[in-house]
Amino acid sequence: MTAMKLESYAAGQWIGPGPDARAIASAVTGEEVAIAGSALDFQAMLDHARFTGGPNLRAMTFHDRARMLKALAIHLGERKDRLYELSLHAGCTKADSWIDIDGGIGTLFVFASKGRRELPDAHVYVDGGIEQLSRNGTFLGQHILTPLQGAAVHINAFNFPVWGMLEKLAPTLLAGVPAIVKPATATSYVAEACFRMMVESGILPEGAVQFIAGGTGDLLDRLTPQDVVSFTGSAATALMLRSSPHILQNSIRFIAEQDSLNASILGPDAGPGTPEFDLFVKEVVREMTVKAGQKCTAIRRIIVPRAVEGDVIEALKAKLSRTVVGDPSAEGVRMGPLASLAQRRDVLEKVAVIGQEAECVHGDPDAFSVEGADAKKGAFVPPMLFRCPDPVGAASIHSTEAFGPVSTVMAYDALDEAVALANRGGGSLVMSLITHDPDVARDVARGAGAWHGRIYINDRDSMGESTGHGSPLPHLTHGGPGRAGGGEEMGGVRGVFHYMQRTSVQGSPNMLGAVAGTFVPGSKTFETDRHPFTKPFEELQLGETLHTKPRTVTLEDIEHFAHFTGDTFYAHMDEDAAAANPFFPGRVAHGYLLLSFAAGLFVEPSPGPVLANVGLDGLKFMKPVSPGDSIAVALTVKRKTRRTDTYGEVRWHVVLTNQDGETVAEYELHTMNAYAGAS
Amino acid sequence: MTAMKLESYAAGQWIGPGPDARAIASAVTGEEVAIAGSALDFQAMLDHARFTGGPNLRAMTFHDRARMLKALAIHLGERKDRLYELSLHAGCTKADSWIDIDGGIGTLFVFASKGRRELPDAHVYVDGGIEQLSRNGTFLGQHILTPLQGAAVHINAFNFPVWGMLEKLAPTLLAGVPAIVKPATATSYVAEACFRMMVESGILPEGAVQFIAGGTGDLLDRLTPQDVVSFTGSAATALMLRSSPHILQNSIRFIAEQDSLNASILGPDAGPGTPEFDLFVKEVVREMTVKAGQKCTAIRRIIVPRAVEGDVIEALKAKLSRTVVGDPSAEGVRMGPLASLAQRRDVLEKVAVIGQEAECVHGDPDAFSVEGADAKKGAFVPPMLFRCPDPVGAASIHSTEAFGPVSTVMAYDALDEAVALANRGGGSLVMSLITHDPDVARDVARGAGAWHGRIYINDRDSMGESTGHGSPLPHLTHGGPGRAGGGEEMGGVRGVFHYMQRTSVQGSPNMLGAVAGTFVPGSKTFETDRHPFTKPFEELQLGETLHTKPRTVTLEDIEHFAHFTGDTFYAHMDEDAAAANPFFPGRVAHGYLLLSFAAGLFVEPSPGPVLANVGLDGLKFMKPVSPGDSIAVALTVKRKTRRTDTYGEVRWHVVLTNQDGETVAEYELHTMNAYAGAS
Repeated sequence: MTAMKLESYAAGQWIGPGPDARAIASAVTGEEVAIAGSALDFQAMLDHARFTGGPNLRAMTFHDRARMLKALAIHLGERKDRLYELSLHAGCTKADSWIDIDGGIGTLFVFASKGRRELPDAHVYVDGGIEQLSRNGTFLGQHILTPLQGAAVHINAFNFPVWGMLEKLAPTLLAGVPAIVKPATATSYVAEACFRMMVESGILPEGAVQFIAGGTGDLLDRLTPQDVVSFTGSAATALMLRSSPHILQNSIRFIAEQDSLNASILGPDAGPGTPEFDLFVKEVVREMTVKAGQKCTAIRRIIVPRAVEGDVIEALKAKLSRTVVGDPSAEGVRMGPLASLAQRRDVLEKVAVIGQEAECVHGDPDAFSVEGADAKKGAFVPPMLFRCPDPVGAASIHSTEAFGPVSTVMAYDALDEAVALANRGGGSLVMSLITHDPDVARDVARGAGAWHGRIYINDRDSMGESTGHGSPLPHLTHGGPGRAGGGEEMGGVRGVFHYMQRTSVQGSPNMLGAVAGTFVPGSKTFETDRHPFTKPFEELQLGETLHTKPRTVTLEDIEHFAHFTGDTFYAHMDEDAAAANPFFPGRVAHGYLLLSFAAGLFVEPSPGPVLANVGLDGLKFMKPVSPGDSIAVALTVKRKTRRTDTYGEVRWHVVLTNQDGETVAEYELHTMNAYAGAS
Repeated sequence: MTAMKLESYAAGQWIGPGPDARAIASAVTGEEVAIAGSALDFQAMLDHARFTGGPNLRAMTFHDRARMLKALAIHLGERKDRLYELSLHAGCTKADSWIDIDGGIGTLFVFASKGRRELPDAHVYVDGGIEQLSRNGTFLGQHILTPLQGAAVHINAFNFPVWGMLEKLAPTLLAGVPAIVKPATATSYVAEACFRMMVESGILPEGAVQFIAGGTGDLLDRLTPQDVVSFTGSAATALMLRSSPHILQNSIRFIAEQDSLNASILGPDAGPGTPEFDLFVKEVVREMTVKAGQKCTAIRRIIVPRAVEGDVIEALKAKLSRTVVGDPSAEGVRMGPLASLAQRRDVLEKVAVIGQEAECVHGDPDAFSVEGADAKKGAFVPPMLFRCPDPVGAASIHSTEAFGPVSTVMAYDALDEAVALANRGGGSLVMSLITHDPDVARDVARGAGAWHGRIYINDRDSMGESTGHGSPLPHLTHGGPGRAGGGEEMGGVRGVFHYMQRTSVQGSPNMLGAVAGTFVPGSKTFETDRHPFTKPFEELQLGETLHTKPRTVTLEDIEHFAHFTGDTFYAHMDEDAAAANPFFPGRVAHGYLLLSFAAGLFVEPSPGPVLANVGLDGLKFMKPVSPGDSIAVALTVKRKTRRTDTYGEVRWHVVLTNQDGETVAEYELHTMNAYAGAS
């Protein structure tokens, strides 16, 4: 085949390989599949991101950007076959590529969905509640997040050219920040093909994304505190980049996700014959062999009760010996080659180090069969299993990562020791625990949580639907302390916030409301000119308020309600018992009677734009209502969010006051309201 | 006076000055007030924190630790006079010391209160909601935070020896992490006195706090990924420390809060004669002169509409000329000296740099009067005001910080330009905006948010209760991007989380519940043996469930409820209009009727441990209930929190299902329940 000439995408232009371009070899055959290395003007790229991409993205709301991600996911989904095809050169089986390609597209979908559900249809995100900084409420505090005004530089690893790109792009674009993507060279032909699909879709605004096929030159030295570097790869490269004086001097955000010495613990309860034992063996073998063990989340350390160590090793060996290694396009092959011959050399060097503290119990790199390919030309290794006789005394097995299908079994006596061994990795992306005992789960999570970014617990109850030790999910944070890089990615909207600045804002309720784009209790309100239930979604304005007339709550009302609903709780029915209660002066109205009367006071009964009461939040009963008291309601438009083509959600601030103007209850009411002309 | 011999507190021992101890001079007289510099075994200190302090603190719940902070605050409050006395040596007026001492104690109180209100009475914090990772709900995700298993090293600045220590200690101890405090030497005699009070109180468990009077030696090179460095001080020192290869290699958390070039903008609406104009002048003068301008949050850049630049300068000069400089213990003195002669030299050097781009319009360091002290011996300077004629073309005024009573006026034409000038500081802790126009507030927050850690907006409505541009508050984040260090402190519970590790946990509902110490919907429940309303707080168990019998909801019930409450909304009363609505098949029951009937089904009416229904959260109506449908309730104990000496809060998971077992509504109910023997 002719080698592909990979192009960079810089300041809106495609730029082919320059004089310093390098060849990229197939992992299977060793033949040249592509060349890459453009000569680029990095300042122009940053300027394009800062002055075109950023403003374009920031002009959109979170929901606009979420819809954009969804469109992108659909577009890529329709073209994914081409990416599967290209991935064969990288040694990926179909199952490997599914994680990368469908996993990446799925991540876009999840962020698109979370963006619509968990972020406002606005430009500013409000983080947490109002802080009462003053007695009379004229001066308040609130936290907001706004998009950084620079660029995100994404430096990706070779093992997941699609997922690795999309899992960083999704939160970045959702935040409103343009990105410059730098894929790992070894598999950049897959990343480039996927990136090209995105650009050609026309879905993204000008300047939102750029792509570097080749090196980053002096790019990082041109960053400012408004830029972010998000890196996935080796600890050594991360350290080199984050140690740059320019990065440090300017407090430039640097998110690192590094390979780590992930562990899996078999619970003391999960001996041979239990569903958990079989599950454990299956998970370990999968993590060792998927992507030929080239996953930052792969299981490197297998921690098992001493009594069953032999059983575990036998079961693993049996399964590993059935793993067919070879050309991923050949029939029956379960594990492809490593990504390159350089990777193979590196793995074998690390295996030698591990071999000093552990004995090899399965897999010989000098004697194994390879299906459908030349073992000498491709980057093939067999799965290799080690056993460490003294894991407490050992050192290298807790710090040496062979980035391939290599793992070490180590035995523990007490659960504490298992936790201590897992923590010896010095910080990991994920540890797993296979147990059916909730107490074991609790103790391990408390003992190990601080050292691991993710804890994956599995047992007979969840194994049917579990997603696998090695799979980071867009809903959950991915990253870990110490050796894992100290960073965090994804985790739903948490991942979006890494590309935004949190700012605490102080001021009067009016000012905070103006900044946040929502009604802040205590702000000036204005009386609605006609009943707000008669107004379509668009006409409702923040702060618009309906004040109802008061209604007296009589003892008869309370008794009637009690008998009608069956709620004859003593606080409503027994004067003495109620008075003896620290909360009440005597018999009081039911909280739900107040809610019901409130609705009776503020509802406009005729058909109109209000479609349904869908929920309520933050209800607080603040003062009891005694027989003879009256209540009146103030109903204020607090926030509006478009939801479908025909209706949107309105959140109302509802306050019930008594005849003395004291607040007796407060809550947020949620309704769905039709748009003008839609009902 | 005799110089105080400051002691370190290391591994439970007080250790006096060693052979390398240094003298500390009074800021007012230049005389020696103290000597400090212990020879310490830093590894022993870290071991004491890790193996004694950490386990002791982690054995407590968040609420235990919050109560501990409150006791500490009370203890210090009773002894604060001594701290005021010592602060005179540092050149602090009573007002200056109030910020430091009462501000620090107040910070403890706020964290104590937030710890009780916003954190669980448990060892693990649950961050965010359950993530549905599977179709049938057998495999879920959730984020937890657990305390780091190392030590926090606090490196504090000289300007607030008490507040600076307590604002870091409060969130650290609340997190369950032991601290090693290193105060700035210049004012360490104040910090040491306060620290000693804390130790002598006996309130803190062994190993929770240690204190370094002197240098940190090789302490930082002995840290692990479970430790945190929290630094407040100059950008140069922060850079030196955070650039340490050991810190970088181990991804050790480094929180930096550095001085920054904070700006204050006068809104275009706030001309002379408005309350905002006078407020602006007052805030600027206060920020220039409090603590002699030695505040990381002081206003260094005064950004005003060009048309009123002259008015602003005249008003500032008039007020500054009335600022009496001198010995803070002398009558009438409003501004004391700088903290040391070295600081004075530094300020005058920076003033010379600023003078190259700006003219001095007020204050001459060679000619000003000093009350009650010898101007030659103390570190006195006058307030100095500059005016920069070309702030857009200038550079040094946006990057040179004279850490004293020095500030520069600069004019803008359009609001955009004011925002751009504010952002030129390269990242600040705080910017303020004095305006009465909410649109100005919105535009400035959106344009400047990404560059500033805090935006302080003030006007006639909030000025009576506002807390001042320069005051970080425990409720709000303190820190800022870029030049301000890129860190974040406080912000309520956010500040606690800097000392904890976030871990995503995956597993079955049972496993997540065991880890979190709460009932997770989908977990196994068990039928209560007698009505849960008859059980005191202690006897209720997570997962304990009452299933009620069903109740049919008739059309008569709906009509009766409608007329009784007045809620005759068309969805309940008008078959055709309801059926035309996209949410309903026809007339349906009121949501509040369902809530009320549910209470009628699950309430046990007799007096007992349930004291009150205090609120409700997360109510969702999921499926309409038509006439003839029936509902039944499952009421499950979800979480328990002790609140007072006699009762605690119970959160109940409430699910309403119809005759087909479909969920029609779900919510969390909050009740207060008496302890055994207390009702």
